[in-house]
Amino acid sequence: MVWAKGGFLGLAGGLGALDFAGGTVVHISSGVSALVAAIVLGRRKTHPDRLSPPHNVPFILLGAGLLWFGWFGFNAGSALSIASGTSGDLVTNVATTAFVATNTSAAAATLMWLILEAVLRGKPTVVGAATGAVAGLVGITPAAGFVTPLSAILIGFITAFVCFYAISFKHKLQIDDALDTFPVHGVGGTVGAILTAIFATTQVNGAGKDGVLRGNLGELGVQLVAIAVAYAIAGVGTWIILKVIDATVGLRVKEEAEYQGLDINEHGEEGYNSEFGDRPT
Amino acid sequence: MVWAKGGFLGLAGGLGALDFAGGTVVHISSGVSALVAAIVLGRRKTHPDRLSPPHNVPFILLGAGLLWFGWFGFNAGSALSIASGTSGDLVTNVATTAFVATNTSAAAATLMWLILEAVLRGKPTVVGAATGAVAGLVGITPAAGFVTPLSAILIGFITAFVCFYAISFKHKLQIDDALDTFPVHGVGGTVGAILTAIFATTQVNGAGKDGVLRGNLGELGVQLVAIAVAYAIAGVGTWIILKVIDATVGLRVKEEAEYQGLDINEHGEEGYNSEFGDRPT
Amino acid sequence: MVWAKGGFLGLAGGLGALDFAGGTVVHISSGVSALVAAIVLGRRKTHPDRLSPPHNVPFILLGAGLLWFGWFGFNAGSALSIASGTSGDLVTNVATTAFVATNTSAAAATLMWLILEAVLRGKPTVVGAATGAVAGLVGITPAAGFVTPLSAILIGFITAFVCFYAISFKHKLQIDDALDTFPVHGVGGTVGAILTAIFATTQVNGAGKDGVLRGNLGELGVQLVAIAVAYAIAGVGTWIILKVIDATVGLRVKEEAEYQGLDINEHGEEGYNSEFGDRPT
Repeated sequence: MVWAKGGFLGLAGGLGALDFAGGTVVHISSGVSALVAAIVLGRRKTHPDRLSPPHNVPFILLGAGLLWFGWFGFNAGSALSIASGTSGDLVTNVATTAFVATNTSAAAATLMWLILEAVLRGKPTVVGAATGAVAGLVGITPAAGFVTPLSAILIGFITAFVCFYAISFKHKLQIDDALDTFPVHGVGGTVGAILTAIFATTQVNGAGKDGVLRGNLGELGVQLVAIAVAYAIAGVGTWIILKVIDATVGLRVKEEAEYQGLDINEHGEEGYNSEFGDRPT
Repeated sequence: MVWAKGGFLGLAGGLGALDFAGGTVVHISSGVSALVAAIVLGRRKTHPDRLSPPHNVPFILLGAGLLWFGWFGFNAGSALSIASGTSGDLVTNVATTAFVATNTSAAAATLMWLILEAVLRGKPTVVGAATGAVAGLVGITPAAGFVTPLSAILIGFITAFVCFYAISFKHKLQIDDALDTFPVHGVGGTVGAILTAIFATTQVNGAGKDGVLRGNLGELGVQLVAIAVAYAIAGVGTWIILKVIDATVGLRVKEEAEYQGLDINEHGEEGYNSEFGDRPT
Repeated sequence: MVWAKGGFLGLAGGLGALDFAGGTVVHISSGVSALVAAIVLGRRKTHPDRLSPPHNVPFILLGAGLLWFGWFGFNAGSALSIASGTSGDLVTNVATTAFVATNTSAAAATLMWLILEAVLRGKPTVVGAATGAVAGLVGITPAAGFVTPLSAILIGFITAFVCFYAISFKHKLQIDDALDTFPVHGVGGTVGAILTAIFATTQVNGAGKDGVLRGNLGELGVQLVAIAVAYAIAGVGTWIILKVIDATVGLRVKEEAEYQGLDINEHGEEGYNSEFGDRPT
């Protein structure tokens, strides 16, 4: 199964890296690409002086809830089977292991984020809870089918902790990554890939490998190489794509469009309409 | 299976009570706890003179829809298997039975609520439809795997009817249970537990028991004892927890916070932001 | 399986028509009924001079997303089994075939709609993307378990193309079908039923039939008859029902209610409330 995933990536498999449900493929890639895009594209004209807060917090919570639910399919489904197997004396079910680890890590990360906000800023927020949940989901993705529930709690705690500070660091660097894609998906994916090398155990999944805590120090090196390769491919690839777009159709909207908003300027529609309007043409 | 559920509760099992998917554990417990909390905490300063109507009715309908969908997993999943069995001459599938009963009861309860509103108040409402649906889902929860679809319709009708009047009664008592948790979950769970004792039949689930309509009058007594025990544990337990919180960190926010709203005062965020704001710190 | 579906309709089965997940039953019927209702009921007083644009575009996208997700259950679930079978030399799984075809067609139709908007109107819209997705889901419904993924792409493209122009045609005829039910569900269902006759192949589903591209020209005639019967039953049936309602309780609200809005006039509630209100009675 790990090899199937590796084959999908065309990368991790060759290296023998562990990536249960695509943490490297999906989250490191998307996070690094977002960072490169934010740097190449540059900041919005209004950044960082006038930033709009989330316009609809209930939607953030709803989106995080739907993501959390969908993630069960993504992670548990990566077992590609609901059949049970055996690892030594244990009867194990990899899909169930992944499901439980996913939920547990997300819950732990949500809790950690709220604690950090409460302690460091005085007030826990619902936007923080949603961000923490996603960080926990990202962190457990490469590890989901390879770790125990207790390890999943630790992965959730650690990923949330690192991602929380990554967002602060992003603000300091004044990078205009509006959705915190690199701090949450890129950094969270990286932390998850490293922690997979620490906590993986063949006790829950005989088709996986043991990690550092089970005496396999070498797995950490393999994961670090896989992470580096993912950074390189996503970073260089995105940079080339952006440069080609810039030289052809152009990367950035006109300044006027930026102030007007892309909904109106590029799509001719507004999110909310409270008055009667004219007939659509 | 019923014993497994009983074991989960550590209560119903010992009593031999029927509680398919946790109506006693989840709904009576939460409803009674909410009632005790509403009484111990006391009313909001603005209650009942200035009450805000639901600020976003589409969200209520969306939430009810997601709950209805999720309830299929909760109730049908309580069969713990999708395998079919036999009860006498019938081939039965308990998960399917629970799924059908859940949907049927929710639909019947929605209909009953709309009829009651239309007849008694002149206008059926979408908030009423959503409340009725949840009442029907609560009522069928303990019975889902033990009853026929026809019984599920009756359970939906009866639960909605009783919950509807329970809300009116709550308004008369001026208890500030803002989400109608006791009238819907507490009362609905109680009605469902009683109706389980009436309608349960081993014809659809050989692992269950027959109810009153199948000649087993004693089941009603067993269920009533289970209900009473659940009320006692949830009520006393919640009262103790609240008193401990009150004596330590305190139960109630400052009056100023209550008028300002907890979003701003406790969490430092607002649900909706339509203007550009300052950079988050 | 196709016969089971046919039996459900009490129509297609007798004719030997192919309708995997109810395109004729659900979409042609609902679309034709909506058209008849729009004509019999007549236009709103404000149509077409003052039409309100969608009041909440995020809800449209959310609804389309939930529909897309739910459609997997509707189409793949119509296989009534997750077991695999064989068609000649191939091992096939009809539920998986239907799942893949559903997603593929929806994606292709979304893309086609955005291209048409971009080319013909200059700006692709999110409302268009959602409409295109639904058109693609409707078009693939009768074909889902009978076609290859490549055919599903073509079905998505063609259905979106035809539905796009059907909406323009509706605007020209000034029919007040506010939700585009006939142009999307009626026309999309019709296109899907015809394309099923073109693309069906027993290579992916031995329980189905071959279509025109596999040499079975007769299937097109069978589907056209089934479509005509569905139009007749839905059209005449809906017309009779509306006339009976008109003669008894009445079809149309008072003009005053129409201007006030049915939320307030018929249901006594408003979708959004931003101010404190009075206590509900």
